[in-house]
Amino acid sequence: MTKNLKFAVIGGGSWATAIAKMLCVNLKEITWYMRNEDAIEHLKIHHHNPNYLSSVEFDIKKLKLTSDINEAVAYADYIIFAIPSAFLNDELKKLTVSLNDKVVFSAIKGIVPETSLIVGEHFNTTYNIPFENIGVITGPCHAEEVALERLSYLTIACGDAEKAKIVAKCLSSNYIKTKISDDIIGTEYAAMLKNIYAIAAGIAHGLGYGDNFQSVLMSNGIREMKKFIRKVHKMKRNINDSAYLGDLLVTGYSVFSRNRMFGNMIGKGYTVKSAQMEMSMVAEGYYAAKSAYNLNLAYKAKTPIIDAVYSVLYEGKSAKNVFEKLTEKLD
Amino acid sequence: MTKNLKFAVIGGGSWATAIAKMLCVNLKEITWYMRNEDAIEHLKIHHHNPNYLSSVEFDIKKLKLTSDINEAVAYADYIIFAIPSAFLNDELKKLTVSLNDKVVFSAIKGIVPETSLIVGEHFNTTYNIPFENIGVITGPCHAEEVALERLSYLTIACGDAEKAKIVAKCLSSNYIKTKISDDIIGTEYAAMLKNIYAIAAGIAHGLGYGDNFQSVLMSNGIREMKKFIRKVHKMKRNINDSAYLGDLLVTGYSVFSRNRMFGNMIGKGYTVKSAQMEMSMVAEGYYAAKSAYNLNLAYKAKTPIIDAVYSVLYEGKSAKNVFEKLTEKLD
Repeated sequence: MTKNLKFAVIGGGSWATAIAKMLCVNLKEITWYMRNEDAIEHLKIHHHNPNYLSSVEFDIKKLKLTSDINEAVAYADYIIFAIPSAFLNDELKKLTVSLNDKVVFSAIKGIVPETSLIVGEHFNTTYNIPFENIGVITGPCHAEEVALERLSYLTIACGDAEKAKIVAKCLSSNYIKTKISDDIIGTEYAAMLKNIYAIAAGIAHGLGYGDNFQSVLMSNGIREMKKFIRKVHKMKRNINDSAYLGDLLVTGYSVFSRNRMFGNMIGKGYTVKSAQMEMSMVAEGYYAAKSAYNLNLAYKAKTPIIDAVYSVLYEGKSAKNVFEKLTEKLD
Repeated sequence: MTKNLKFAVIGGGSWATAIAKMLCVNLKEITWYMRNEDAIEHLKIHHHNPNYLSSVEFDIKKLKLTSDINEAVAYADYIIFAIPSAFLNDELKKLTVSLNDKVVFSAIKGIVPETSLIVGEHFNTTYNIPFENIGVITGPCHAEEVALERLSYLTIACGDAEKAKIVAKCLSSNYIKTKISDDIIGTEYAAMLKNIYAIAAGIAHGLGYGDNFQSVLMSNGIREMKKFIRKVHKMKRNINDSAYLGDLLVTGYSVFSRNRMFGNMIGKGYTVKSAQMEMSMVAEGYYAAKSAYNLNLAYKAKTPIIDAVYSVLYEGKSAKNVFEKLTEKLD
């Protein structure tokens, strides 16, 4: 039944590559858009992405590769966006093909800087796509472990449960278990906010705080996330479900998370600019901290951890001093 | 005001040593009981415990060291027990001095095997100590980080808030923040149950599951813990407070936790017996799994993780098969 569905993956990074791999288990064919034409050529010849998850071998007959986003969008019924949120707007500007009647899923964990909206809201507001046609794919899931086919659980949220089920079915396999949800706003905010907590965890680590403090930080982090999301979109949800708490933990405890790494450099004394220059990947949490802080000026949730990260990243405050004050607010 | 309070610490291990260190910040004198007379002699001469946290230097003038538990109990108003739960009953059997009018605090994270009770309940049931005189000291707190004076948060629970405050004050310092609670049953069960989840995390790691699965396991673990504790003692509590979730995380994510290490060996194929022989320390979670499983025969909370650990440890089932089935029950 799902075999003939037309899916396009937008993005050439590790998470896009992982999603393409998952889809290829269940679909005869997918269209995969990436900007980088060299990567496409390499994939065609060597059957793997040269830049990300290069151990993943693709059945090249299943891949329609293109560097033209319009070709990908025109092809697909379901479009999965998996590019850094900072680049989304530029990609969407290239569209001449309409997104009407397309089902768009976000596998992006961040805020669109131009509109300060999460991706789902951005599609809804800017492109008039109804929430029944908008979905979110969320972890806890490091792409690297998908490459290794290590058991992972995804949550697929959509305003229309049937569409969530379809996407869930197309991503499921012997190493991917899926669960559906109707909380498209909450799951996407959680995926965005967790990157700020990962930066906080990194800063704390960089400053020399230990595992005892880290667990207190995460425990306060999930309580803060619950308050924030409740203000944004109140509904019945269990914040300890894998899509919220699990996603926070896999990122906050990962030494491979670029957000945690970025925070760690700040904690060790790098300036924000030098830490950014040192890293070749975008730390989504950097943008998320600003957006969450600004949003919260209206929501007024009590968010001492977000405030602390914002203060360090955008107000030039000393990480050491800010975190000393933060420790007084945690319990 | 707290300077003249008489505290005794019972135990010679790392957690007892950490507690003695914390108390010495605030008290002129404490009595410290340990069975091992050689360790006492060493402490007197070299000012540190030779076997645990040996980097911690004590002001020896503050320590009344004794290998006679009756001397320690007779001396103290407040007695803090910090020995493995498996040895508690044997130690208490030596008592000729009454525990009447003493305030007893448990820093033990486990079940008394002879009665299948948590320590607070054991004191209440077996020694008729009223709950106003019973307390719990709980983390998230690795003793090793107390030795390094890394910032840590303790929760001090007691039926009598005044007594909780006194103990909190005596343990607080520039690197220890304390919080009081009235949930003596819940915090102690959490401290006990988390060791079972740490064994589960270890088994999963030993079997080759990755970080994605680990975060799902912890996210399911805290939900399971909430259900279990609610059955045992229903009251208003936030399971994401540091005493519950924080304590679970610091243990479940610690590569130094003996419970996780024990689980890891089981996952890698050691038999329960050979894993126990290989480890020189007691894995509290081993006993906890049996007690929790048996208790739950009456409570009937849905506890697939506890059931899985019990099944591997006590029913001789294959860890691989049991965990494969467990993955179907998590989400």
